[in-house]
Order: sequence, then structure tokens, then C-alpha cells
Amino acid sequence: MASLMFTDCSSSTTSRLIHLNRRNGTFLLRQCVGQLRFQTTASGRGCIRSSSSPISAISADTKSEGAAIVIDGKAVAKKIRDEISIEVSRMKESIGVVPGLAVILVGDRKDSATYVRNKKKACDSVGIKSFEVCLAEDSSEEEVLKSVSGFNDDPSVHGILVQLPLPSHMDEQNILNAVRIEKDVDGFHPLNIGRLAMRGREPLFVPCTPKGCIELLHRYNIGIKGKRAVVIGRSNIVGMPAALLLQREDATVTIIHSRTKNPEEITREADIIISAVGQANMVKGSWIKPGAVIIDVGINPVEDSSAARGYRLVGDICYEEACKVASAITPVPGGVGPMTIAMLLSNTLTSAKRIHNFQ
Amino acid sequence: MASLMFTDCSSSTTSRLIHLNRRNGTFLLRQCVGQLRFQTTASGRGCIRSSSSPISAISADTKSEGAAIVIDGKAVAKKIRDEISIEVSRMKESIGVVPGLAVILVGDRKDSATYVRNKKKACDSVGIKSFEVCLAEDSSEEEVLKSVSGFNDDPSVHGILVQLPLPSHMDEQNILNAVRIEKDVDGFHPLNIGRLAMRGREPLFVPCTPKGCIELLHRYNIGIKGKRAVVIGRSNIVGMPAALLLQREDATVTIIHSRTKNPEEITREADIIISAVGQANMVKGSWIKPGAVIIDVGINPVEDSSAARGYRLVGDICYEEACKVASAITPVPGGVGPMTIAMLLSNTLTSAKRIHNFQ
Repeated sequence: MASLMFTDCSSSTTSRLIHLNRRNGTFLLRQCVGQLRFQTTASGRGCIRSSSSPISAISADTKSEGAAIVIDGKAVAKKIRDEISIEVSRMKESIGVVPGLAVILVGDRKDSATYVRNKKKACDSVGIKSFEVCLAEDSSEEEVLKSVSGFNDDPSVHGILVQLPLPSHMDEQNILNAVRIEKDVDGFHPLNIGRLAMRGREPLFVPCTPKGCIELLHRYNIGIKGKRAVVIGRSNIVGMPAALLLQREDATVTIIHSRTKNPEEITREADIIISAVGQANMVKGSWIKPGAVIIDVGINPVEDSSAARGYRLVGDICYEEACKVASAITPVPGGVGPMTIAMLLSNTLTSAKRIHNFQ
Repeated sequence: MASLMFTDCSSSTTSRLIHLNRRNGTFLLRQCVGQLRFQTTASGRGCIRSSSSPISAISADTKSEGAAIVIDGKAVAKKIRDEISIEVSRMKESIGVVPGLAVILVGDRKDSATYVRNKKKACDSVGIKSFEVCLAEDSSEEEVLKSVSGFNDDPSVHGILVQLPLPSHMDEQNILNAVRIEKDVDGFHPLNIGRLAMRGREPLFVPCTPKGCIELLHRYNIGIKGKRAVVIGRSNIVGMPAALLLQREDATVTIIHSRTKNPEEITREADIIISAVGQANMVKGSWIKPGAVIIDVGINPVEDSSAARGYRLVGDICYEEACKVASAITPVPGGVGPMTIAMLLSNTLTSAKRIHNFQ
């Protein structure tokens, strides 16, 4: 199974341009959240769009009658951003503190620059202050570390992202490790992952994309406790933490990966499916138990000569088939994607509240 | 499901006395490794004991013909201790360093004292130097922290265990967190667990009991890659890390816990079962797929008037039934138990090698 996409599902790698790589006859997607910009008509076909309020009770036990409810990630993300906006104002009014998110951009990749700009916009829209450092492509690792260190020490910065990828002459791991764990809003530090895995421990931050998946289930009142959940894909930034989150909520979780011999059979047992594998339309309708709830993290471009750009975006799940079997499903785009950046804003707010002990 | 037992499966809590608590009509087991001392006849009945060499090829795909091979943890542990002994000698001869394990004992619990003594014996048997600090029951937390700090700074100490439980007036978490991660041979630090969960990362130490489970599979040449594995129990110290280890070896893993609705059905899909739940004979023969491999971490005392002590020890798996269906099974006692302390010695050796950069 391709896992290329997963390495780009961190909020520090979101919003990059899509690269279509036909060398291997496949597309490589170098972007995760940018699909907010791509409003195709691929989603929702043949399915019932949920109402403007995304809060509706759905049970994975309820057998679908041929049309799944569409989990509207865009609407939920908007609602969350509105909530964050209110909290940011309340915090400012109460204690005079404005949450701050810093992004370090190295080099002149246009895609990175564009998406750093998008993050800035998202921050602006909720009142989070954004900070930015742009360093030249030929900067030294020490210069980047100096910037990290500066933001680590800056009390007005509550979250730090280093925009990836970094130039190849730099040790990415080394630079990421330099970010203070209290400001590591991506939540990928092993200490956070360890706490996520352990009962009785709480991570400082939950990685944005898996957090967004679970938040969608919560906002749609989809019960998790006692449910069979299958996570397809075991990446560090989506599949694995999503499985840990589901387990924390008392689901019985199985992770399917490239070495799994009978993924179809196992997936068919699931009440909840989270797919984050980066293979277009991999999960067919026959893989899905009637009434299951599907969260599709995959965003895969497929050739489409009728589209202006020559391609359209689809998920890991064959949507047209799945929405006839599932009870609820996220579309691609407009499902999980918009949630990632909302969760990044949420993590930044959480960080500021914790640092300033603001309830 | 009871999870009491799990909290005692750390190597820092091994070898305690068994407490029989009839208040709730159940037994509470406060001990994990001490079963080395209890040689009942409960194990091996109706089953084939493996040969003196524990290395024999077993396939979970092979249908059992009514008699499982008994995975002889005692023999494997002995072999590992012999291997450790050779490595300790080689290290001493090559660079003049002897691995050292320090145990901090607080209070006058007889069980704790006995089992600290047992650890000392185990160290002696392989040439690892053991250090011990005994503090009075009414010691202050600061005094314990001072001892931890002393061992943290002592270059002849490569592993530190704080014997649990600590007196109730102390903050256990606080004290355990004070142990330097490079010497935390129990491997329970969230940073270690995080690294265990993450692909491409390596933990400094793998927790002893789950490490022992996987080591048994390896030593018996039982393939893990691509196999369906079920872990029963999700404790921080056995179930969860065992699942992470199985996943690192490319098994398709499901964790069953107290909220799982159909544990029998899910368990029956497994090629490999690791049970660590602390319920006597919970897993019946009907739960087991013919030819499955079973690692039974549970050690549960059940009343037995014919036994001198009035009880005997059994696992989570109904051994008499299981050994007719499985292809291989660990007995209780004599299965996983002896492996825990062997892995503790192994972790101490690993630590010394790493600190002194000795290959």
C-alpha cells in the first residue's frame, strides 16, 4: 500500500500543491488540506447531504437504506473555527493573551509558501496571531535551530510548526526535535504518542488529522465505545494515532496494513472504518458492512479529462459504492481535509490556555 | 475484565507474594514472576513437552492434531541467561565494564524484600552487578528521589528499578519519572512507548513481559508477519506494548478488552493469541482456531484443596482445552513468567552496551 500521502498529513505539511507523478503510472499527492480549494462535484453524488447543522445522531448499528448521510467536514470545521474564535476573544478579554502560532519556512518552494500563507489566513480568521520566519534555501541547520529556539523562548508563541519538507542538507528529525514539546502543536513527538497509547496518561497534543476524524464522529453523535473499528493504514501521523484514539474511546480496533492478508474480510467486520492509505477507491462497497460509518482520510487525484485540471480528487473508499451501504460517510474533498487545519487552530488554542492556565 | 494483575507485571513489581483476596469472591494476584518457585503439575497435562532445545519450527497455519507443543519458557529463559552471561563476560574482558542494576526498596514489605533478593540472585547468576538501597517505610519522597538521583549519576549503574508499591504517602509517578530514561530498564516511560508505537523509531527499552512474549515466538521460529494476532487485555505494561510489538513485526493486530462485545468470535480469528487479562481459564478451547499459537501471560491462583498451599496457578487460557486445539502454547507456570526477569537482565545488558558504545 502506498503510504506517501500519510507523510504529508501533518499540519506542517498541509496545503501543498498536488504533484502528479506519472512516472510510475500513479499520482503522488503532496498535499492534504489544500482540497478545501478544490470544490469538485465528486462528493455527495447519490447520497443525502446532511443538514446545515452537522449534529445528527447516527448509529453504526442502523442498517443503511441505500443512502448514507454525508458527514460534512467543511461545515463541522467551520463550526469549530467559530467556537475557537469565541474562545480566543474570551481569552483576550479575560487575561489579555492572544494565542500565537509560528511557522518556519525554509527555501523558496512555491507550494510551501502558498500554504504557509493559508495557515496565516486560517489563524487570522479566528484571531490567532501568526508569526512567520522565512529562511533562504541555503540557510544552515544552525540558523533554523536558532529560529526554533527563538520561538521556543517567545512567550507570545504557543505553537510552532516547521514547514516540511526542509532542504535536503538539513536533518529534519534534529530540527523537529528542537521544538519544545509544550509548543509542538503537530503532536508527533514520541512523548505525545506514548501518552496517547497509555491508559491514564494524557498527551499534550493529539495529531491534527486523526483528531479531526474522531471529532467528526463526536460531532455526529456516532458511538465509538464497544464498536468494532478498522483503521486502514498505520502511518505515524494518521493510521497509528487514529487507532490509539479509537482505543481510548473503547472501540475494539484492528489496524490493516500492507502485510494484512485479508483486508476485505476484516474491513467487513467494522462498524467504523477510518481509511488513510492513499490508494484511490481501494475500499469497494463489498468491503463494507451495511450501516458502517466511514471516515475517509485519503485524497487521491485520478485522471479526469472532463475536469479543468485534468484530474479530480477521490478518497481511499469507492464513494459511489460505499454510500449505498454505509450509514454515514465523509466525502472527498470536504470531509476530513477541512478538519486538519481546524484541529491545528484548536491545538494552538489549547496550548495557549495551558501555558496561561486559562480555563 | 480484571486488570489488577497487569499492574504487577513490571519487572519492578515482579516476584511478590501472592495475596488471596476472598472478599469479592475472587483472587487477586500480586505477583508475576515468582511462579518460578511454584512448580505445580498443572502445566503440560495431556500435552507434549517440547524437547530440551526450545528451538523448533512451528507454524500457526499447521493444524494441531490434538496436542500442542508446549513452549518452554523456563528453558528459553535459561538459554537467554546463559547468553547474557557470555556477553557480560565478553564486555568485562574487552572494556572492563560490568553491567549494573540498581534496585530501590522502600519500606519493610516482606514480599518486596524477598523479590528484590531474587533479582539480586538473577543478576549474580549472569554476572551483572546489583546495587540496592533500602529505605525505611517513613522515608520522605525527597530521600527516595535522592537515591534515584544518585543512581542516575552513578556510571556503574546501567539500569534502575524502584520496587513497587511505594508507601502511600509518596507520589509514585513523580519518583518513577525521576529515573533517567537511559536507565529505565522497565521501558514504561511514555517516550519509550511512543517510540515503540512509531514506525522508524526505536525505543531505548522494550517492557520486559511483552518482550518476553515475542522472544518466545522468535525462539520457537513462529512466524508473525502477516498473521492475525489478538491481544487480550490492554494494560500499559503488557497488552498495549505487546500489541505494538506484534504490529512492528507486521502482524494484523486486534486488541480485545473489557468493552469488546464478542471476544470469543474475534479471538477465534487469531493465528497468535497473547492473553494478559488476569482471569483464570477465561479463554476456552472453543475460542481458539485450530493450530493457533497461544502465549498466556495470566497467572491466576485458583482454589485447590489437594495442593499444599490450598491453591494452584492457572493462566487466562483454559489449558486443558486449549492444548488440544492450539499448535503451541505456553504453560502456567513455566511459560512467560521466567522470561520477564530474563528480559530485565537483557535490558540491563543492552543499557550497559549502549552507554559504553560496546557492540
